[in-house]
Amino acid sequence: MSFNIVKNDKKRVIIVGGGFGGLKLANKLKKSGFQVVLVDKNNYHQFPPLIYQVASAGLEPSSISFPFRKIFQKRKDFYFRMAEVRAIFPEKKMIQTSIGKAEYDYLVLAAGTTSNFFGNEHIEEEAMPMKTVSEAMGLRNALLANFERSITCATERERQELLNVVVVGGGATGVEIAGVLSEMKKFVLPNDYPDMPSSLMHVYLIEAGDRLLAGMSEDSSRHAEQFLREMGVNILLNKRVTDYKDHKVVLEDGTEIATRTFIWVSGVAAITFGNISGELLGRGRRIKVDEFNRVQGTEHIFAIGDQCIQTTDKNYPNGHPQLAQVAIQQGELLAKNLQRLEKGKPMQPFHYRNLGSMATVGRNRAVAEFSSFKTAGWLAWVMWLVVHLRSILGVRNKANVLLNWIWNYFTYDQSLRMIVYAKKAKEVRDREELEAKTHWGEENHTQP
Amino acid sequence: MSFNIVKNDKKRVIIVGGGFGGLKLANKLKKSGFQVVLVDKNNYHQFPPLIYQVASAGLEPSSISFPFRKIFQKRKDFYFRMAEVRAIFPEKKMIQTSIGKAEYDYLVLAAGTTSNFFGNEHIEEEAMPMKTVSEAMGLRNALLANFERSITCATERERQELLNVVVVGGGATGVEIAGVLSEMKKFVLPNDYPDMPSSLMHVYLIEAGDRLLAGMSEDSSRHAEQFLREMGVNILLNKRVTDYKDHKVVLEDGTEIATRTFIWVSGVAAITFGNISGELLGRGRRIKVDEFNRVQGTEHIFAIGDQCIQTTDKNYPNGHPQLAQVAIQQGELLAKNLQRLEKGKPMQPFHYRNLGSMATVGRNRAVAEFSSFKTAGWLAWVMWLVVHLRSILGVRNKANVLLNWIWNYFTYDQSLRMIVYAKKAKEVRDREELEAKTHWGEENHTQP
Repeated sequence: MSFNIVKNDKKRVIIVGGGFGGLKLANKLKKSGFQVVLVDKNNYHQFPPLIYQVASAGLEPSSISFPFRKIFQKRKDFYFRMAEVRAIFPEKKMIQTSIGKAEYDYLVLAAGTTSNFFGNEHIEEEAMPMKTVSEAMGLRNALLANFERSITCATERERQELLNVVVVGGGATGVEIAGVLSEMKKFVLPNDYPDMPSSLMHVYLIEAGDRLLAGMSEDSSRHAEQFLREMGVNILLNKRVTDYKDHKVVLEDGTEIATRTFIWVSGVAAITFGNISGELLGRGRRIKVDEFNRVQGTEHIFAIGDQCIQTTDKNYPNGHPQLAQVAIQQGELLAKNLQRLEKGKPMQPFHYRNLGSMATVGRNRAVAEFSSFKTAGWLAWVMWLVVHLRSILGVRNKANVLLNWIWNYFTYDQSLRMIVYAKKAKEVRDREELEAKTHWGEENHTQP
Repeated sequence: MSFNIVKNDKKRVIIVGGGFGGLKLANKLKKSGFQVVLVDKNNYHQFPPLIYQVASAGLEPSSISFPFRKIFQKRKDFYFRMAEVRAIFPEKKMIQTSIGKAEYDYLVLAAGTTSNFFGNEHIEEEAMPMKTVSEAMGLRNALLANFERSITCATERERQELLNVVVVGGGATGVEIAGVLSEMKKFVLPNDYPDMPSSLMHVYLIEAGDRLLAGMSEDSSRHAEQFLREMGVNILLNKRVTDYKDHKVVLEDGTEIATRTFIWVSGVAAITFGNISGELLGRGRRIKVDEFNRVQGTEHIFAIGDQCIQTTDKNYPNGHPQLAQVAIQQGELLAKNLQRLEKGKPMQPFHYRNLGSMATVGRNRAVAEFSSFKTAGWLAWVMWLVVHLRSILGVRNKANVLLNWIWNYFTYDQSLRMIVYAKKAKEVRDREELEAKTHWGEENHTQP
């Protein structure tokens, strides 16, 4: 296997990860004189802010995802490769991946984060994360199967386990999924399951800190909490989850909450590759970069977005928040800086322009804050809709999401509540097995 | 576990399978004075005629599927249960299922068919069938992964395996998937994979008989064959597939065709349940029924649609073709007959009104035949579109499919080509394991 890309007289930029940052960078490098290679383990870009609506059967994955090959159709000197990066060899300017080796002139790491289980392997095995559309579809399927099951199960205890949902993590994703699940209880369950009292369903939101939305102001936290309580969500603050056993979430204080729908959105850790030295990693495993997003101690390797930590921006001495806007702005600047480097000009340091942050809690309810003002309720909700709709890739996807939202708003009811798993072909299973073997066997991280 | 349905003074009709026949019957039993229980292993109805468009990434599963609970919202005395039937006990008027036992007054079997591998276990393991949206999604994912892989694979031989597609079975589904794949080669590959010569992709359609579309007239067969050949499909007639090994489809005459995308749409066999006596089964394992669709030798059990065979209809002495229209008409009549039975009136025998049949080959190309006339080409294609659009359940799905078709027609290009597998939660995997055990262990088919 090989990347199978002919090296031409242009310098090659390999971008690892096609999220917000990587995609922006790839777009801005159009006609830049570089050969651009985008590597991602999926063949599509996904839009994380709306993944919770995929999980709650409000949107289809295809409405918030876009195939890379379609994004870059007709783009010259651009190559997409579906692969996972295994190791980086700076001295050889080379990466090792699941499809072989590739040499770069510049390497940009933009692979983002993964769910953080804080070393608790048992929780990692049992809980459902919600970082990707694949995980969101799995959660949707599990949730719907639990509803079905709750009607015919043998005992009251089991029924309660099947109908309780426990969300761990009070950040934006946790607030959003808890909100939409409480709406599901109110608007969907009574119609879909007339023979099941929907009052039996309980949504819990557990946060280890003392407030929800810790990244936002205390006002926004208070509003979000109030909205969620009005919607019937059971909010537990200052509670740490320590285990999950016998279909029960166990808290540090010994309390147990029965559930078979155990959603974990409690934190993230940056993606790492086999041979990155621990010294290069900061808080949350984020790769330390300088003011130009260059990885410390390297010459031609950069990291942008959630995967990196930059402490040189004077307003953010502890690093930027892990938000789409930071990644997008870093990708944009890096495109310029790479071109400046080539022209022998000095690079420009990164400064984050805070465009504000927002989180939606439910129908007509959101919180939003900007440098100049804060708002909560209907106005914030409308702003949330507009901002997110604008950011989704492709006219078609925008139209799709808008139509879905309008339909949802008036009918309270989608027809996406189907339990479907794509059947894996033997060819695919065989290949996965082979790749797993290759990964642990033949491949050697230390000797390229 | 139990069905958890309170028996009231109404007689209970259990319908097994919510395909065309079962769904029509359930709909027509509205306000009939029966308690209706619909049992299906999926929680949604699917529309088989368009499954091939899901496989080719032209439509989303949700555009051609509809959750049963949504279909029957607000319906009185109706119950949906997601379960698989394991055995029937006529003397006790009871069925045994994956969620427990249930008693019936009338039982209607409408579970349809499954792919027929004619006893070849090796082919069954290796080939990809295309009977369900789940299988279609698996095929889509495998096809796209093979394209990705073809760019970076190690050898020319492997590249050819990855780019060849072999479709076995020249019925409507085979013709349709072969046609749409050849369009993919022509319109999608050159744009999505500029660095891969799309001429390397070959689509083979293999049929054991001497013509395609054996269920239609020879004129239609000839037209379909001509259309497909013009579109570049390699058609092999009078060829029987005997094996698949080392990524090669093996024909009876010894010929081998390299492929890793081996699609099997060569025939169907009716679904059977654990303890149905072999004597009750006719051609293709179909359950023998009398002119009222009553299972031979039983009093209160009926079978409709593809799952049954009825030889009493004078124009169809060997049984009806396995088409949606037969199932729908049988479901409709059975709804009346069950009500007549209850009123002590004699039942009416079934006679199939042949509304014609059609198959689409590609853009602007289809074949259609009716009692009074036959047509091929653009007119047939438009008729095909209208007929299928009309039959899809739900205004929203109709609109969705129509918009998708229009978009496809003008752009030749969807943005659905994403490789996504829903991640299975541990809770789901555990339950599947448990159910598999229950199925083979505790349960006893002979003693309820």
